[in-house]
Amino acid sequence: MSHSIAQIAAALGLEAVGDTSILVSGVNEPALARADQLALAMKPDFAAQIPQGSARAGMLWQGADWRSFGLRAAILASRPRHALSGLSAMMDSGQGYHRGIHDLTVIDPGAELGKAVSVGPFTVIGAGAHVGAGSVIGPQCHVGQGAVIGPGALLHAGVRIGARVTIGAGFIAQPGAVIGGDGFSYVTPEPSGVEKVRETLGRESDPDAQAWARIHSLGGVTIGDDVEIGVNACIDRGTVRDTVIGTGTKIDNLVQVGHNVVVGRNCLLCGQVGIAGSTRLGDNVVLGGQTGVVDNITVGDGVITGAGTMLMANVPAGRAMLGYPATKMDANVESYKAVRRLPRMMREFAELKKAVSKLVEGR
Amino acid sequence: MSHSIAQIAAALGLEAVGDTSILVSGVNEPALARADQLALAMKPDFAAQIPQGSARAGMLWQGADWRSFGLRAAILASRPRHALSGLSAMMDSGQGYHRGIHDLTVIDPGAELGKAVSVGPFTVIGAGAHVGAGSVIGPQCHVGQGAVIGPGALLHAGVRIGARVTIGAGFIAQPGAVIGGDGFSYVTPEPSGVEKVRETLGRESDPDAQAWARIHSLGGVTIGDDVEIGVNACIDRGTVRDTVIGTGTKIDNLVQVGHNVVVGRNCLLCGQVGIAGSTRLGDNVVLGGQTGVVDNITVGDGVITGAGTMLMANVPAGRAMLGYPATKMDANVESYKAVRRLPRMMREFAELKKAVSKLVEGR
Amino acid sequence: MSHSIAQIAAALGLEAVGDTSILVSGVNEPALARADQLALAMKPDFAAQIPQGSARAGMLWQGADWRSFGLRAAILASRPRHALSGLSAMMDSGQGYHRGIHDLTVIDPGAELGKAVSVGPFTVIGAGAHVGAGSVIGPQCHVGQGAVIGPGALLHAGVRIGARVTIGAGFIAQPGAVIGGDGFSYVTPEPSGVEKVRETLGRESDPDAQAWARIHSLGGVTIGDDVEIGVNACIDRGTVRDTVIGTGTKIDNLVQVGHNVVVGRNCLLCGQVGIAGSTRLGDNVVLGGQTGVVDNITVGDGVITGAGTMLMANVPAGRAMLGYPATKMDANVESYKAVRRLPRMMREFAELKKAVSKLVEGR
Repeated sequence: MSHSIAQIAAALGLEAVGDTSILVSGVNEPALARADQLALAMKPDFAAQIPQGSARAGMLWQGADWRSFGLRAAILASRPRHALSGLSAMMDSGQGYHRGIHDLTVIDPGAELGKAVSVGPFTVIGAGAHVGAGSVIGPQCHVGQGAVIGPGALLHAGVRIGARVTIGAGFIAQPGAVIGGDGFSYVTPEPSGVEKVRETLGRESDPDAQAWARIHSLGGVTIGDDVEIGVNACIDRGTVRDTVIGTGTKIDNLVQVGHNVVVGRNCLLCGQVGIAGSTRLGDNVVLGGQTGVVDNITVGDGVITGAGTMLMANVPAGRAMLGYPATKMDANVESYKAVRRLPRMMREFAELKKAVSKLVEGR
Repeated sequence: MSHSIAQIAAALGLEAVGDTSILVSGVNEPALARADQLALAMKPDFAAQIPQGSARAGMLWQGADWRSFGLRAAILASRPRHALSGLSAMMDSGQGYHRGIHDLTVIDPGAELGKAVSVGPFTVIGAGAHVGAGSVIGPQCHVGQGAVIGPGALLHAGVRIGARVTIGAGFIAQPGAVIGGDGFSYVTPEPSGVEKVRETLGRESDPDAQAWARIHSLGGVTIGDDVEIGVNACIDRGTVRDTVIGTGTKIDNLVQVGHNVVVGRNCLLCGQVGIAGSTRLGDNVVLGGQTGVVDNITVGDGVITGAGTMLMANVPAGRAMLGYPATKMDANVESYKAVRRLPRMMREFAELKKAVSKLVEGR
Repeated sequence: MSHSIAQIAAALGLEAVGDTSILVSGVNEPALARADQLALAMKPDFAAQIPQGSARAGMLWQGADWRSFGLRAAILASRPRHALSGLSAMMDSGQGYHRGIHDLTVIDPGAELGKAVSVGPFTVIGAGAHVGAGSVIGPQCHVGQGAVIGPGALLHAGVRIGARVTIGAGFIAQPGAVIGGDGFSYVTPEPSGVEKVRETLGRESDPDAQAWARIHSLGGVTIGDDVEIGVNACIDRGTVRDTVIGTGTKIDNLVQVGHNVVVGRNCLLCGQVGIAGSTRLGDNVVLGGQTGVVDNITVGDGVITGAGTMLMANVPAGRAMLGYPATKMDANVESYKAVRRLPRMMREFAELKKAVSKLVEGR
């Protein structure tokens, strides 16, 4: 499918310059772009590579001297990275999932599908489930009994939505994502070694054998609008109330969100983040890859963590955190620099002790 | 389904007081409980919220003044959290998986299914597999050839059990769990860079290209009774002998257990834990979320780790560990406090050196 | 299936000694080996256990005095661990996946399957996909439209290959692996808190609510020959160009490779490794379990990391790295030893300050 430069610019609300009738059928990096592709050159460094490719048109920054790179047309964006969002949506050719309801599906007669819903082969939809209008349920998915999915959802291959999960509009789930697995919640007849360690900070552990009794997860999961869940990520159901994911939040691959957790609005949880049970995240929280958050703490609005950070205590709003255990980002960097110099300092300390000792003796 | 307070208390072996004929059809938090729900108020803090809801009956701690919260009936438990285990099992309405053998399944004629086994749509069961009586195999599962699953199993949607895996009674696997993937085991024709680094602690690496030859995993996985495996978690098969998971052990979401690993009885492995090949865990080991355990070490009975701990060497029984690399929990906390004070101490150290230097000169 | 000792040795290009007509049908550890199994005794420690089992033949190291362990035949290998590669391939009885094209599949008429391709039940293959000769596509897999898989592939149960993914010869994917999920890439209309934190190192965070706009992933994934991907691991597609995995690279369970990443040849990425977007790894890189690599950095050829390492900056070729944040392995070990001694040193420092203070006063 081809679009003219004028059409693209109009759709994105941007300025088009030059021969805006030029047609493009895709986008590419400047050096690799063919004549029918739009070169993406968001920064001067990239634009310099345009002549290595064959692009006739490009997307550049506001004020770029686009003719100087040999282009015949350009789309100029004041924030090109943001413009890429709309552009990439226009150019996405999708996964080609089956349109309509495939014959080889098992859809309970008590399930309700909205208008223009597609269901791919080998998908199962349980009793009492609702799927909102215009949703595409890919192949090999499972939507449990009583689950509610809002309009415009896209479930990629092999997504599992458990019973009694409630999801808003515009939901996207990548392959293998699981919403509504059971929480990891067990209890021993008598206080366990873990409970004692929490009280004594490790001065007492208890190797006595006690079997774990299962606490069933009676709650569900409630997910707001415009949420995306990554490949093989998992959001567990709550014990009594629902686990909650706020509107606009995006969750990356292999992330684990435990039972009873509340994640606020417009958060980003990057790859392999883990959030333990009953913790609460505010709005606009951004957790770097492999960040861990222990159970039963509160993380304020706008908190940001570096990769691999471990949050072990409540964090006030607006704070940038780093490290294991987490401290304020600038303090953490200072500490780690000090740790690197520590071996040398220890040698100097030993010398200083000797020098002082001599002085004391010589007094 | 409704139960009277008397019925619930009898089933759980607990004391019921007040109008024990009151019927409830579910449980809820005190402030949210409706008149037909049992308020869960395990602690005084929670009980204080009962009047905000409409509950007529609640579960409280032994000795609670339940009438003072406006309740007409109560179940009193000496360890309420443990009582929640039985209560939640009674109240769990489940996933509603298909009962009986669904038509759209592929079950090898050589597979043996016990009495009252259910198999959901789009599930595949291989030649020579045995599934114990009363098991529920959910939709879209795969049970490999020669796999043995004990009675009373519950395999959620999309679980994969590989060939020659042996599992005891009462097994539960959450969606997407994989038992019996191949171990990650490769070898180079000549000693590789990794082998040299292990010997020299990093003073020699080897960027020479050597291709990796695959070592096939000929062993299986043996799992005891009452084991639960979390969402998208994976237990690899052994190289020659089986990987082993002991009776009563519970494994959370996205956990990785490598080839040849032996996990003891009644262990808890929390979310995103990783255990590398050939390591042995004793009984009652509890590994906090994102804990890593390197290959070929031994972790004693009753060892407990904090979140994000990395065990890099053998750990004696009963020890509480924390940190990267792991040390005893209390020592680790002391070290980290010291690290936070280190930048200031280094400035003081620089001053002290000057002061001593002056003294030396002034002598 | 039985093989004689002579046959096995010939297939592996190794020396056979003794009664090489003895037949074996499997391998085992020395103490457990039955009379029809080959005892694996790569080291003297293991060989000493041969008499505890019933093996008549074993695989030992070059120069071993095999008769002294009671064996009647032996295969001698100069690098026995490498010999295990070929031996284990001979002895692997596999998963028993369906051979031929199963009836209960959905294969688009526009897909091209090479000679002798097998496709298991409940698998979906999209329009324009190519599957190379001799490949075995297991049950419940999904191969997206336009995906290309080279000859000799083995896709285990539930593998998902997205649209426009290109894979070379000899590919192996463990159950639940996902190639070609969408990249995790979002942008705010105005610079976000994360962008400010990157510039200011955490002195400014921004709790203002801004919704995230999605950047669609238009690129694919290109995978070389002889690549293996672990259970539930995921390789995301690129934004504009392809994410790339080089020939001979092996990726373990639950590994995350982000969008636009380039992984070189013959790398090993161990369990739960995470690589953030647009980072480049050279050839022969070995990342230990749970290693993290931040986005947009370059890791040189032959770099090796210890378990749990976090690479936060470019790493030159050939370096062995450890720690959070990563430093050279030997320096890191020295630093951590110093940290353990730090609390004691701080007490000594306080004493030294007092001593110097007295000296200054006494002057």
